[in-house]
Amino acid sequence: MKRQQILFLDRKSSISLQVQLASQLKRLVQTGQLLSGHLLPSTRELAVELKVSRNTVVHAYDRLIGEGYLESRERSGIFVSETAPDLRSAARQTATRTGIPAGNVMPTTPFSAGPTPFRPCQPDVNLFPLGMWNRLRAKVLRSTDRTLLHYHAEATLGFQPLRETLAAYLRDSRGVACEWWQIAITSGSQQALHLLANLLLKPGDTVYMENPGYVGAVRAFRSAAADIRFLPVDANGVDFPPLGAEPVSIVYVTPSRQFPTGASLSLARRLSLVNGAAAGTGTWIIEDDYDSEFRYAAPPLPSMQSLDSGNRVIYVGTFSKLLFPSLRLGYAVLPRSLVQPFHELKSTADDHGSLIDQATLAAFLESGGFYSHVRRCRRNYAERQEAFLEAIEKGSLPLDFRYRDGGMNLTGFLPPGLDDLAWSARLKRAGLDIPALAHYANAPTEPGLVFGFTAFSPAQIRKGVERVLSLRFVD
Amino acid sequence: MKRQQILFLDRKSSISLQVQLASQLKRLVQTGQLLSGHLLPSTRELAVELKVSRNTVVHAYDRLIGEGYLESRERSGIFVSETAPDLRSAARQTATRTGIPAGNVMPTTPFSAGPTPFRPCQPDVNLFPLGMWNRLRAKVLRSTDRTLLHYHAEATLGFQPLRETLAAYLRDSRGVACEWWQIAITSGSQQALHLLANLLLKPGDTVYMENPGYVGAVRAFRSAAADIRFLPVDANGVDFPPLGAEPVSIVYVTPSRQFPTGASLSLARRLSLVNGAAAGTGTWIIEDDYDSEFRYAAPPLPSMQSLDSGNRVIYVGTFSKLLFPSLRLGYAVLPRSLVQPFHELKSTADDHGSLIDQATLAAFLESGGFYSHVRRCRRNYAERQEAFLEAIEKGSLPLDFRYRDGGMNLTGFLPPGLDDLAWSARLKRAGLDIPALAHYANAPTEPGLVFGFTAFSPAQIRKGVERVLSLRFVD
Repeated sequence: MKRQQILFLDRKSSISLQVQLASQLKRLVQTGQLLSGHLLPSTRELAVELKVSRNTVVHAYDRLIGEGYLESRERSGIFVSETAPDLRSAARQTATRTGIPAGNVMPTTPFSAGPTPFRPCQPDVNLFPLGMWNRLRAKVLRSTDRTLLHYHAEATLGFQPLRETLAAYLRDSRGVACEWWQIAITSGSQQALHLLANLLLKPGDTVYMENPGYVGAVRAFRSAAADIRFLPVDANGVDFPPLGAEPVSIVYVTPSRQFPTGASLSLARRLSLVNGAAAGTGTWIIEDDYDSEFRYAAPPLPSMQSLDSGNRVIYVGTFSKLLFPSLRLGYAVLPRSLVQPFHELKSTADDHGSLIDQATLAAFLESGGFYSHVRRCRRNYAERQEAFLEAIEKGSLPLDFRYRDGGMNLTGFLPPGLDDLAWSARLKRAGLDIPALAHYANAPTEPGLVFGFTAFSPAQIRKGVERVLSLRFVD
Repeated sequence: MKRQQILFLDRKSSISLQVQLASQLKRLVQTGQLLSGHLLPSTRELAVELKVSRNTVVHAYDRLIGEGYLESRERSGIFVSETAPDLRSAARQTATRTGIPAGNVMPTTPFSAGPTPFRPCQPDVNLFPLGMWNRLRAKVLRSTDRTLLHYHAEATLGFQPLRETLAAYLRDSRGVACEWWQIAITSGSQQALHLLANLLLKPGDTVYMENPGYVGAVRAFRSAAADIRFLPVDANGVDFPPLGAEPVSIVYVTPSRQFPTGASLSLARRLSLVNGAAAGTGTWIIEDDYDSEFRYAAPPLPSMQSLDSGNRVIYVGTFSKLLFPSLRLGYAVLPRSLVQPFHELKSTADDHGSLIDQATLAAFLESGGFYSHVRRCRRNYAERQEAFLEAIEKGSLPLDFRYRDGGMNLTGFLPPGLDDLAWSARLKRAGLDIPALAHYANAPTEPGLVFGFTAFSPAQIRKGVERVLSLRFVD
């Protein structure tokens, strides 16, 4: 293919280069311009040609391998898949009928049954007390006489009783100091990140971000055209330079367990960040405390928000991982000065979320059912972590599980030089969903694989590990 | 007060001037810098002083009257309310404890029981078959064996069976031509508007908008820093200039029943818009078809989307008004070329919404329960419209109800020169929620009052109208 003619990446677009590249390659497959069995250029070659980083190409290929459009054959390269979803005739029909380029057809992905081992960050929805939840929902509906069905202008930031009970929970469990009206209920923590990015960033503003780090946060900051600095993670968590040397609008950090490595941010670094931000540098800290409930050994360090005397820390959390992901309830604890601007933006973005769900969650927290559920998950997940480590460490794979004190995932670091994306693709072909650390990276990082262990029973875990250990990895 | 020192409006902010002004005035009341009984400057005077339009001040005052901070005394002017929510001591405590300016305290608004007559656009939630809905929800949960609880990457734009059944419904009921994968389920139609504004607009881009028009759309376009042209509405709907004379990024229009006047956009104007956009001007048309299900006399004109051969119309709708508002389910039907970019943005903004609700809605549509419910509402609402008109036209108020062929609201136009905001404020003091047309206006418009009649029983309607008619209006 004459790539310089066919592929065009728009550097000014809010859509990332890797997503643009992946969409365009997909379109070439869908429209028959790239045929099954076609050998694609190497990542290095295409990166040079398109003047992008190699990682951009790697991620675009990775994505299309995941979607079945491309396949990686060991020692030969990346090919257009023999079983690439055949949308060509459908696309041609569409193009004829509408006069629109055929590429913009969405492929149909079947509704999946649930996560495949060892997909990270997935709770076991079978542990969730759905019957109790449904009974509380019915009770809440009965006792409020359909008032929950109305639109409520006063609930843009959430149902007040939920915000009140959540404030008490966060104070007791994480030392978060706030009044209930500082809490904004959002559609997952993703919405909180996206709104905060829109509220706090102007194009070109600097954001400090962990590398490897949370892809959803990167997307949110990119959508606000921020200039993101990716900073390395070590055994003490992320290593940010001292605040004050340059203007930094946002520091995004996962202190309890760095995502995805699992390293905990040291107290010295926490204090340096919090005090730096409090010293009037104009920096906001977003503390994403996505799974701190799951600690199996030592208790966690206090939240950074609790150390913050300068009102510069925004604490973000989610119920997706504690209850069930499709509930889509997250929250942000806002410094006082951000409450009104966030309220304005939330009412512009989508106003309040489902009040029935929010009232049910409030009742679940108040009934104590929430606490029993979290304890039950913690017990089960600790057992599963043990089962996973015991099984995988019986094998001889060069995986180093450094951080094992909690969370929903375990990162196995690989020796330097090994290609974690190739390992992950190999595992994918064997039906396993184990992302590479490189998948979360935007700058060079150690290779590794991220195993989620919480969504699977000990038996599934042992079976999955057997499958991992039975594979041959050639780099 | 030395206003030039106290009030500062940031014209570069994404927060509208009227909202900034209202917040700052509210803070002055809360912090005791403006005391109860204080006479505020006239809207004209303050507008000149702050170099803003008079409407900006009118809206800010209107808002604070609604919230109880200010009150309008006939023939005397606007005063700080005698019963202004007293947050002063709380605010002072907060300020002392945290060292933060006291202004940023959110006042507590109690959870409201439901809409007050005659709040526009509110369905009667008592007509909703909640028992059936709950049974369908339980059935859907049983039959899907907890798979709906998982996160589903393939559901970013919505649960596929809902999109399929909705595509069929829109084709049959509104002539909307689309494949299911062109439908994006959103958190209310507000989210659709906000995402579209973010996707399609660069700062300074021109948007054509109706005047008076939907406040939520104005907020969405303002958040993208668009240059909004407000165009007048007459008996044939909004009167846009022909497309092509200047670059226009978005035309936002409510053709079925112009919101809030109720005028229907003539076929000639529909065709002029659709053909203009199809001629390659680069204009997108957003057709907000927010209540077309409720026509009581003639059938509605076909949707503009169905007239569009150029794939430039984005059709936006909502279930808030058909089912119940706190469900927060809306949708956009996207031209093919926008499906992938919208998908990217939706996954960045908040990913998919609650899948249990979406699956329940799909079952509700498939079961036919949806159709019986809409018929039942239509029957009841037609009766209520009649009851309302019969009652109000017995009085001698100079209200002209021009457009009465459907919808959820009736706009009573007032003779030129009457101050509809003053009328609305008078009604508010009497416990009635009847917004002025000026509330929806950003440029001069005829005065009028917008009465919603759907959320109230015929008896409530008659009682509400009696209260309206018992008042003395002095302009």
